[in-house]
Amino acid sequence: MSWQATVLTLFPEMFPGPLGLSLAGRALENGVWSCTAQDMREHGLGRHRAVDDSPFGGGAGMVIRPDVVDAALAATQVPVDVPRVFLTPRGRPLRQQDVQRYAQGPGLVLLCGRFEGVDERVLESRKIEQVSIGDYVLSGGETAALVLLDACIRLLPGVMGCEDSGVEESFSEGLLEYPHYTRPAVWDGQNVPEVLLSGNHAAIAAWRQTQAEEITRERRPDLWSAWLARREKNGAAANGKNGQTDPTGV
Amino acid sequence: MSWQATVLTLFPEMFPGPLGLSLAGRALENGVWSCTAQDMREHGLGRHRAVDDSPFGGGAGMVIRPDVVDAALAATQVPVDVPRVFLTPRGRPLRQQDVQRYAQGPGLVLLCGRFEGVDERVLESRKIEQVSIGDYVLSGGETAALVLLDACIRLLPGVMGCEDSGVEESFSEGLLEYPHYTRPAVWDGQNVPEVLLSGNHAAIAAWRQTQAEEITRERRPDLWSAWLARREKNGAAANGKNGQTDPTGV
Repeated sequence: MSWQATVLTLFPEMFPGPLGLSLAGRALENGVWSCTAQDMREHGLGRHRAVDDSPFGGGAGMVIRPDVVDAALAATQVPVDVPRVFLTPRGRPLRQQDVQRYAQGPGLVLLCGRFEGVDERVLESRKIEQVSIGDYVLSGGETAALVLLDACIRLLPGVMGCEDSGVEESFSEGLLEYPHYTRPAVWDGQNVPEVLLSGNHAAIAAWRQTQAEEITRERRPDLWSAWLARREKNGAAANGKNGQTDPTGV
Repeated sequence: MSWQATVLTLFPEMFPGPLGLSLAGRALENGVWSCTAQDMREHGLGRHRAVDDSPFGGGAGMVIRPDVVDAALAATQVPVDVPRVFLTPRGRPLRQQDVQRYAQGPGLVLLCGRFEGVDERVLESRKIEQVSIGDYVLSGGETAALVLLDACIRLLPGVMGCEDSGVEESFSEGLLEYPHYTRPAVWDGQNVPEVLLSGNHAAIAAWRQTQAEEITRERRPDLWSAWLARREKNGAAANGKNGQTDPTGV
């Protein structure tokens, strides 16, 4: 059965959009995943099909009504065991391990906000997780939904050639990847690092590890601290074991 | 003069994509911004217009050649003072203040990778910044480029109605936003928090501040620590000032 992407949006024509092309597009044609965009406007109220109203307590902007979101969600008829995600900068930050979990499941229901936000009651009572793709503000959740779907789809069985799978490793080790070089060996007067042409696999691996550590330390102090802490813990565990008296006498 | 978005990609048909609709689409029609997608394939080599080759030093995946990126960049004829960004999980994390800086400038040149990555030499010598929209892996830089452009375009003069501008404030204060509620006042048996109906503006502001602090502490320990440190610093500065003997005797 195919992985099922369902999007609640005021702009259904944005989907599948870029995901109708390239790897994701081929997978869509092959039935690896499916994409349904549910227009929340169809569940709006009155002659103007209003979907939003002003916030209780005052303040700028408009808030999407809980009854409208709930009606649109019910209309999708997606089973309740499919995770529901509201894309918002107020959410828990998206990580690659979340993407892996979503990709292994039956699919996702993605709620895309516009305006100031969505009434909190429907998020809580309909168990809609709040997820952030990063610390910046978008005009709506639609481009964030495309990012989250792209990240999931490439992990579905048969979508990605094995040649891409290496990228994954760098995040699972907790370091950023080392730099890449390809032909020509001399470009614009610049050589590629000599070690990469040496054929010495151990030296190449050591160089790449050093590069990955330096880049992580420089660009991502947060990942670097976490990596150091993990290394220290593992090192301490190894030392502790070695330091123990072995009662078997081996 | 309009804000100029130039995208180097192997999938030019993905642009403007979703940004041709809604707020961004209207702004595009009105000439607030322009969008040019430069097909890197046109600068590929040989009969098959190859854009990539295997990495020096071995390993999985293919790397985009520096000469191909450079030729595509030159073909855009975008002035060198326009910031150039390569979207990659190896990059510096994108923050709202970066978005504000980009939006205030003349535009952006966005390089979208595919495969394993791009030769490091062309990134360095052509001063292409490496930026990450988050800690997850995409099939290519295109959906990330759409996110970055969306974030910038909504800040361009005249694009966003003033009703949306409140969203911005929450990030600039360093806390996540408080929850939103709108009509109906009772939905699915649930009332909105009573304070929001009280008309007591001071009580509402205090409630929202407490909510923002609780949500930030719970979902984003990183932002919460930074906010506490800032508050402590400001508090200490204020106390220091109050504690000083005022030589003017006022």
